[in-house]
Amino acid sequence: MVFAEEEGGRFGVPCLGSRLLSGAIDADTARRLHDPDGVTLAEAVAAAGLDPTRLGRDDEALSSIGRFVELHVEQGKGLVDLGAPIGVASSILAHGRWRFRFAGEGNHAGATLLGDRRDPMVPAAELVLAARIAASEVDDARATVGRLVPNPGGTNVIASTVDVWLDARAADDASTRRVVDRITAMATDAARREGCELTVTEESYGDTVHFDVGLRDELAGALGGVPVLPTGAGHDAGILAAHVPTAMLFVRNPTGVSHAPAEFAEATDCEAGVAALATVLARLAG
Amino acid sequence: MVFAEEEGGRFGVPCLGSRLLSGAIDADTARRLHDPDGVTLAEAVAAAGLDPTRLGRDDEALSSIGRFVELHVEQGKGLVDLGAPIGVASSILAHGRWRFRFAGEGNHAGATLLGDRRDPMVPAAELVLAARIAASEVDDARATVGRLVPNPGGTNVIASTVDVWLDARAADDASTRRVVDRITAMATDAARREGCELTVTEESYGDTVHFDVGLRDELAGALGGVPVLPTGAGHDAGILAAHVPTAMLFVRNPTGVSHAPAEFAEATDCEAGVAALATVLARLAG
Repeated sequence: MVFAEEEGGRFGVPCLGSRLLSGAIDADTARRLHDPDGVTLAEAVAAAGLDPTRLGRDDEALSSIGRFVELHVEQGKGLVDLGAPIGVASSILAHGRWRFRFAGEGNHAGATLLGDRRDPMVPAAELVLAARIAASEVDDARATVGRLVPNPGGTNVIASTVDVWLDARAADDASTRRVVDRITAMATDAARREGCELTVTEESYGDTVHFDVGLRDELAGALGGVPVLPTGAGHDAGILAAHVPTAMLFVRNPTGVSHAPAEFAEATDCEAGVAALATVLARLAG
Repeated sequence: MVFAEEEGGRFGVPCLGSRLLSGAIDADTARRLHDPDGVTLAEAVAAAGLDPTRLGRDDEALSSIGRFVELHVEQGKGLVDLGAPIGVASSILAHGRWRFRFAGEGNHAGATLLGDRRDPMVPAAELVLAARIAASEVDDARATVGRLVPNPGGTNVIASTVDVWLDARAADDASTRRVVDRITAMATDAARREGCELTVTEESYGDTVHFDVGLRDELAGALGGVPVLPTGAGHDAGILAAHVPTAMLFVRNPTGVSHAPAEFAEATDCEAGVAALATVLARLAG
């Protein structure tokens, strides 16, 4: 299987391909998703020569998958710390994305007195700091703002609106919700103090994924007892896990860095990953 | 005279046309300016069918200007408060733009523990809040962040770098420098706490402009004693004021808003502005 838009970089929803196939996102909702230039998914699909009306859950394709195994570089240093080139995944953190839109009053940066301002950049900045605070209060939680877009975004203009995307993850649903609720409360208070309006939209959410225990142990055993470890990163395997027995293999990442140029794996470890996948597939197909 | 790029929206330096004509910006420096897509001013000028080698101070053109009068909607509510449709400018605040680049470590938003992060968005957010604090400590000062660009700007990615543009203005040079120094100190401390590097670049700066007093009083008198008032907004007239007697006429702005859709002037006030400009030009040409 090859899925499109796993990062959600263009249309905002990660694992869009596997969500569509499995019905984790409604086809109409997906068709209306748009990229930063306002192009909808339906338009982009049509422009690529495909038929957007065919998007959506496909039970025939889904039932044709016996078991699903995904090979990926580890996104973290778990295998480095364990001194192992290969590992098997146990679980994925609960994970969601929320868009916070702060609406204030666009105005001139030089001519507008401080006391007359309703500047949405101020509560947006407070949200960034609130995310760090709220995540630090819950074990193993992470909350990140990597995308923030002021509109119109001019140097000499107080923004009219600021969109901030929050990525939040934690060990389980309750912990994740607690982090996001706390951030939302702080952002709401910050918006009120600046005379701004705040609208919060959940763009995607997935509960904790526990990969199939039988398959996991079978793979770890077949590979000579390689380590089993959790991950904080989302994957198509995490979406499919709700439908079919699913597993993941990880390859050691010396820097632990991911989603950045320093992401790296040694060629020998990559080869070990390919060999492990071949071993596992041969066994499962046998 | 008609000048290009007064807002500095594309190449970052406001009043670029009048700065070039008057030599307030060096031609080589200007040619190397680039827009957000990396297109240099020299390339954009050539693409528009003009000769970029001809950019730069033009003493012949400059000496051909006897006096310079600019008509503009007021950016503020001074004339509303005074109940007057027309006014004459006295001065422009000292004004500059600074780019703060925070460099951290790009990484995965889900897989990177809070304690392992060097996230440049955190000190960038602290800079936004520092700007408000620092400006509030100095009478009549304004400090604004309207433009903030995380790189790469993905929802599930801790940014590698964040660029923040600061627009700061105050009554005089010393006050403006005090505000910017205070913000820089707070931003430097915030970057250090997050393990990020900070580079600060002054992209433009202009000291307080006091318009020619004789010309100002002559215009106010010729228009029947209209009010004289300062402004916080920069203008080409402010650049030319270093070279020729310069004045500005303002038209009432009922909302006081500028650089936003709510910017507005009544048609009758606009007509009064045109009539005032015609009166003034006829007198000066007489």
